[in-house]
Amino acid sequence: MATMKCSIPKGTRDFLPFEMARRNYIFDTIREVFKTFAFEPIETPSLENLSTLMGKYGEEGDKLLFKVLNSGDFMKDVDFSQDYHKVAPAICERGLRYDLTVPFARFVVQHRDQITFPFRRYQLQPVWRADRPQKGRYREFYQCDADMIGSTSLLNELELVQMIDLVFQRLDIEVTLKINNRKILAGIADLIGAPDKLVDITVAIDKLDKIGLEKVREELAGRGLTPEQVSALDPVFNLSGSADDKLSQLQALFAEVPTGLKGVEEMRELFSLIATVQPKCHVELDLTLARGLNYYTGAIFEVKAHNVSIGSICGGGRYDNLTGIFGMPDVSGVGISFGADRIYDVLTELEKFPATLGQAAQCLFINFGTESQAYCLRCAAQLRQAGVSTLIYPEAAKMRKQMEFASKKNIPFVCFVGESEIAANTVTVKNMATGEQQTVALENLADSVR
Amino acid sequence: MATMKCSIPKGTRDFLPFEMARRNYIFDTIREVFKTFAFEPIETPSLENLSTLMGKYGEEGDKLLFKVLNSGDFMKDVDFSQDYHKVAPAICERGLRYDLTVPFARFVVQHRDQITFPFRRYQLQPVWRADRPQKGRYREFYQCDADMIGSTSLLNELELVQMIDLVFQRLDIEVTLKINNRKILAGIADLIGAPDKLVDITVAIDKLDKIGLEKVREELAGRGLTPEQVSALDPVFNLSGSADDKLSQLQALFAEVPTGLKGVEEMRELFSLIATVQPKCHVELDLTLARGLNYYTGAIFEVKAHNVSIGSICGGGRYDNLTGIFGMPDVSGVGISFGADRIYDVLTELEKFPATLGQAAQCLFINFGTESQAYCLRCAAQLRQAGVSTLIYPEAAKMRKQMEFASKKNIPFVCFVGESEIAANTVTVKNMATGEQQTVALENLADSVR
Repeated sequence: MATMKCSIPKGTRDFLPFEMARRNYIFDTIREVFKTFAFEPIETPSLENLSTLMGKYGEEGDKLLFKVLNSGDFMKDVDFSQDYHKVAPAICERGLRYDLTVPFARFVVQHRDQITFPFRRYQLQPVWRADRPQKGRYREFYQCDADMIGSTSLLNELELVQMIDLVFQRLDIEVTLKINNRKILAGIADLIGAPDKLVDITVAIDKLDKIGLEKVREELAGRGLTPEQVSALDPVFNLSGSADDKLSQLQALFAEVPTGLKGVEEMRELFSLIATVQPKCHVELDLTLARGLNYYTGAIFEVKAHNVSIGSICGGGRYDNLTGIFGMPDVSGVGISFGADRIYDVLTELEKFPATLGQAAQCLFINFGTESQAYCLRCAAQLRQAGVSTLIYPEAAKMRKQMEFASKKNIPFVCFVGESEIAANTVTVKNMATGEQQTVALENLADSVR
Repeated sequence: MATMKCSIPKGTRDFLPFEMARRNYIFDTIREVFKTFAFEPIETPSLENLSTLMGKYGEEGDKLLFKVLNSGDFMKDVDFSQDYHKVAPAICERGLRYDLTVPFARFVVQHRDQITFPFRRYQLQPVWRADRPQKGRYREFYQCDADMIGSTSLLNELELVQMIDLVFQRLDIEVTLKINNRKILAGIADLIGAPDKLVDITVAIDKLDKIGLEKVREELAGRGLTPEQVSALDPVFNLSGSADDKLSQLQALFAEVPTGLKGVEEMRELFSLIATVQPKCHVELDLTLARGLNYYTGAIFEVKAHNVSIGSICGGGRYDNLTGIFGMPDVSGVGISFGADRIYDVLTELEKFPATLGQAAQCLFINFGTESQAYCLRCAAQLRQAGVSTLIYPEAAKMRKQMEFASKKNIPFVCFVGESEIAANTVTVKNMATGEQQTVALENLADSVR
């Protein structure tokens, strides 16, 4: 029988053990930091009712939702002469989770009586999007989210900054954390009398570095700003100096723009808190940062790694009305999301994964046949009890084969047990990296293979 | 705006932090044992091509597969006048993972050039089945599988027994591990000259305890066995004594039944290996055990907890041709699967979950306002660096509210920082369980709240 063609759906991935070890290194680091900041884990189902998901991610998002066919006779009473957009919701009641934010909002509303606020939750789960697959973009990928809700204190924002700092310290990635505030962006739009053009202005500002001031001006005019409004933006384009300097200049500009002043005040307080804790990473105020403008209402965060040309590896912000979409108003929250796949790419490119990741075992016992078997089992049990990952080669295969196995599997220590070892209650241990060999007493075995 | 009705699909679950803590306790225990036995983690996509899944789980299984609607215009060129069974595969190319075994087989075939055999993998991932939801049965649930492939040595079976023993020791659940062998069951069918009635005989034997010998005989007759064949089973029904005793009696019966003799020999060797390692759990030979008879070819395992009436909480066995369905023959494997949901129910019923699970944090700093803030932040950073889960209450709320928060969240230590503490570089720590309060130097803080 010929081998059947084995494949997996486009945009999805299998993870081999060495990839799992690297991914778990990232997830464990992030999870550990989430935990020390007292975030509590939750999980939500992979399947949500489509009514929960539809309309939450814009028209484009609705298209990218994976829809799950109803069980049984899904065709009953459905009019298949309609357009496929109309048929889909009639034959699919459920869809796959698209992000962790909307399910979290649904979770909070549904379980509000079981939750003590303020509530900090973290969630590490896969999400699915029917995006066109391309390099670095997958149809199934993990999100690592931490959100704190039910408190408007800027201490929350500060702690997110500390967590970002700690995660990338531990992963040994140098990063810049950019911070902005939606209220400042709104203030700028108010300032020039174009509050309805907030998004256009922000998009244009965002391009300043790439296309230059003249092109940005042209673009703004093309988006319907009057020449006066475009000129009125000049002071914003000319802001310079430290975060403090820029905030002072903005404060002067915003003399009669309450939203803008509020944004400046929040940023002043946050940057002063940040100064107290002295993060290791570079933190800067970046007025061009407009990430997730649709729902952020206060601080906006974005993290970029130094020395690689990979997009942002973490982002987040404050949203004042997360649960409003489910009819529970006035719950303010702030959160961040780490992009595990991009962090994986950064660590690969910078060669920063620890070298010890991806050993199949710490220690392999060579199998010389049934005579030494009972003794090997006893040694292995002892090592395993001590938490040492241990393997006994399952058959008395040729020595060369067993040694090759150890080396292919990156197993650092190989143990030999013969008559003399059994008689003396010892094991001969070979360090595969140095080639050194020593005979150790059973009671010291665990220490000898660590 | 009224609160929208928030719900999740039938048969799925949200997990609150206290449930996550309990679930992670189970997963971590299992994963730790898998690791010390040198199993390596892999993951496969949630979505598989339907062609990979269909026909692998029987007709009933095909019905229970969740199918995912094709993106874009799924209706194009599809004949909707057909029966829904025919339409479904035409509009759905992908389905959700139904178990971890078939994807693992697909994985091995697809990545065979990247794998060094013998290969031990573990996999903890959710699976989905469109089963009718009922108590203890869910449409999304986790499986925790460990399989070793590419070796026929019974050392593999032994190590699975050791792993089962260790997992339930660590979870503090008393269990009985039942072991049988498919070759013995086949030998019995051969013995009475009814090899085609293997399944019927096994099902009948399985009912012996419940309905008694007479009813079993009637049932066997009803299933087409001749009176002579039914009588020929008497010696099997009359087996008694220890595993060794039963195996000796079977050996005599199987004098001219090679398959049966091979099964007896395998069980003898396995039980003798098990005797060497002296597991803590009760291990018995159970000839009525017929679990997963469809694909097991050697040893069959099943674990039941004492003192609760919950079905099996772990099971597995040897299959000689796992990857054969994908055209790669002669790869023998043996594996086990832990049922995390049932283990959860057992631990709940026996009240065996550790009491410390589900604390939101180890330590809460009461927030007295901005003056002590910088100092609290410094203390918290120090604790977090030491791995202690720490929370600063985000606002200077009323003391009573903050203390209530600590108690609702099961936080065992509350820290107070006032002028005198700041001046003396100390923190006052209250143990919430005993009510005791002490003032400790900053350098001893981490030890005082553990």
